[in-house]
Amino acid sequence: MDRDNILLTPGPLTTTLRTKLAMLKDWGSWDADFNALTADLRRRLLDVIHAADSHVVVPLQGSGTFSVEAAVATVVPRDAHLLVLDNGAYCQRMGKLATLMGRRTTVHSRAEDQPISPAELEGLLRADPSISHVGLIHCETGTGVVNPLAEIAEVCERLGRGLIVDAMSSFGALPIDARTIRFDALVAASGKCLEGVPGMGFVFIRRDLVDACAGNSHSLAMDLQDQHAYMQRTGQWRFTPPTHVVAALAEAMRQFAEEGGQPARLARYQDNCRTLVDGLGALGLRTFLAPELVSPIIVTFHAPADARYDFRAFYAAVKAQGYLLYPGKLTQVETFRVGCIGAIGRLEMQQAVDAVGRTLAAMGLPAGRA
Amino acid sequence: MDRDNILLTPGPLTTTLRTKLAMLKDWGSWDADFNALTADLRRRLLDVIHAADSHVVVPLQGSGTFSVEAAVATVVPRDAHLLVLDNGAYCQRMGKLATLMGRRTTVHSRAEDQPISPAELEGLLRADPSISHVGLIHCETGTGVVNPLAEIAEVCERLGRGLIVDAMSSFGALPIDARTIRFDALVAASGKCLEGVPGMGFVFIRRDLVDACAGNSHSLAMDLQDQHAYMQRTGQWRFTPPTHVVAALAEAMRQFAEEGGQPARLARYQDNCRTLVDGLGALGLRTFLAPELVSPIIVTFHAPADARYDFRAFYAAVKAQGYLLYPGKLTQVETFRVGCIGAIGRLEMQQAVDAVGRTLAAMGLPAGRA
Ligand SMILES: Cc1ncc(COP(=O)(O)O)c(C=O)c1O
Ligand SMILES: Cc1ncc(COP(=O)(O)O)c(C=O)c1O
Repeated sequence: MDRDNILLTPGPLTTTLRTKLAMLKDWGSWDADFNALTADLRRRLLDVIHAADSHVVVPLQGSGTFSVEAAVATVVPRDAHLLVLDNGAYCQRMGKLATLMGRRTTVHSRAEDQPISPAELEGLLRADPSISHVGLIHCETGTGVVNPLAEIAEVCERLGRGLIVDAMSSFGALPIDARTIRFDALVAASGKCLEGVPGMGFVFIRRDLVDACAGNSHSLAMDLQDQHAYMQRTGQWRFTPPTHVVAALAEAMRQFAEEGGQPARLARYQDNCRTLVDGLGALGLRTFLAPELVSPIIVTFHAPADARYDFRAFYAAVKAQGYLLYPGKLTQVETFRVGCIGAIGRLEMQQAVDAVGRTLAAMGLPAGRA
Repeated sequence: MDRDNILLTPGPLTTTLRTKLAMLKDWGSWDADFNALTADLRRRLLDVIHAADSHVVVPLQGSGTFSVEAAVATVVPRDAHLLVLDNGAYCQRMGKLATLMGRRTTVHSRAEDQPISPAELEGLLRADPSISHVGLIHCETGTGVVNPLAEIAEVCERLGRGLIVDAMSSFGALPIDARTIRFDALVAASGKCLEGVPGMGFVFIRRDLVDACAGNSHSLAMDLQDQHAYMQRTGQWRFTPPTHVVAALAEAMRQFAEEGGQPARLARYQDNCRTLVDGLGALGLRTFLAPELVSPIIVTFHAPADARYDFRAFYAAVKAQGYLLYPGKLTQVETFRVGCIGAIGRLEMQQAVDAVGRTLAAMGLPAGRA
């Protein structure tokens, strides 16, 4: 049957039909109706993390990486020094894009199965006063490990260093409160826990900082200060916005509010995660992270330690039952990942567990032996 | 009545319901089905300008400007020298983004109501051998003037200089043949004459050039060589693609083929343009460009020379009748613009003319007196 697959991936993810239906309209990007849509969306985004007083939010065309690059380009001055404590693929990407754009960048690689240590960060910052900014991935989607945002932010504030947070996969699900957590910039995107479709990101920038960012960016398209100034002046995006993606996100955010906002979303994802981990655990599949470190965003599982296991075959067989898994992103260990996010609930997770169980059995890797 | 407005704008534009309906599905960006969609789309894009033998096409997330910036960043080496002969707003934007990223850039400003002169370009290139690349806007959407792509390309080829073409608003409507016109890069986007929704661009890069572009880009997100190499290796986009926008473009391109490709699309837009220019002409509204320079993409009209005219009021009154006009982009002369592109035909153009006529009459600016 030609039924839509359920995406168990960290974005793009399964969205509601109501969100997708919001795309059945063409908007004029110069028109007041669309400006009102953008303004409403920005207000709602600020509210998610209680940032209306402290930050502005600047939407940007493109994928999430474009917004991470834009945040670094805009907020980190050209002669500044960025430190990234690296515990996964997205940390490395931030280090790479900062280096490429010519910012002095230091990347310290750490274990992928452990959160970044605030104490270690403090030591590094004390030892090198030239480090002006810290780059942090909130939920490192490569493994699913959550880094201690509040503690890291406290260290940065105390030592007078800037903080850029990539909260791509956590925003809207994990609690973030801009009234108590101090950051210069925080980045997320439409197609993650807000359950919109992919195509735009957005960056929160400290209000008292944004004007001074003029001239930092090496890129016209990624200059968030310029995008912000233009938007304040005209109500419009500088360059053609992805109008249908914006409309879908606005509709998704109405549903986010109706569901009960971040606490309700987190509760649903936690339930998804428990159903998944318990279900696959009963099939003999172990999580890569220690149980207390597993996050309700995405879970990395060790692949069955059996020569007959092959990810492509495993993926195809689960897909044939309507569920799309996600490959692992670790180089040393054979893993696969399962997202807990999107417009899905316990039923979908249980059915996904069933599909995995049937697949393992069919591959001759029955429960308990994986 | 809550009926959708018709967009007489140079993108986003009015798309068919069939194109929008293609967005009612969530695709896994890692999945083989989506890879096949991307591959099919890239083949169709190459076919539009007969470039399958000579060029690769690299899709990129973001608005069209992102793809222009990426094309310059990727194709123009860091020590190269880019010349832009400027006859409008998008020429200036190319000059600005090249300057910002640190490329040596020369912008010569010329009259906005005239095409760029190939003879003048030849003189400039002969006088300065340090100029390695030329940047050209095919249809300068600021006024609608079409620059002589074939002649400019011939000069660049003969003098051994590279050519970057921004064909954003012409691609799919005006004829471009990569078998006879030599360029290093040519840029367009989803939400223009292919009649997709906005959210991605694409850049054609000469096959024999693309590998040598490694390391040119100052930006990770905008590195088209890296995007291309990754796509060749994996079939996937490097970073999350705007899956719904991609699906809409693929569906729009099926309709493009069914309509009869570029010649048929041009014929429809020419008919739209004639209906518009004749109709508004009969109301006393004159085009900014000389009649022989008016293009079937977008037409700039002089505003009525009457103190009672006010663009915002004029726009609002025409909008109330279901049609969205576009503001002028000229600083010296008061103008407005009307797009001829999108999923619209003679009927819509005639109704738009009627709406403008009724509006002028109501504003006390009746036909013949404008
Ligand atoms: C933590 C994190 N950062 C950055 C990205 C990159 O986003 P995109 O793939 O949209 O460029 C992702 C995507 O999953 C992510 O999870
Ligand atoms: C010739 C030309 N170049 C560049 C652009 C910029 O595209 P975008 O607004 O999608 O960034 C446009 C948009 O209309 C255009 O017409």
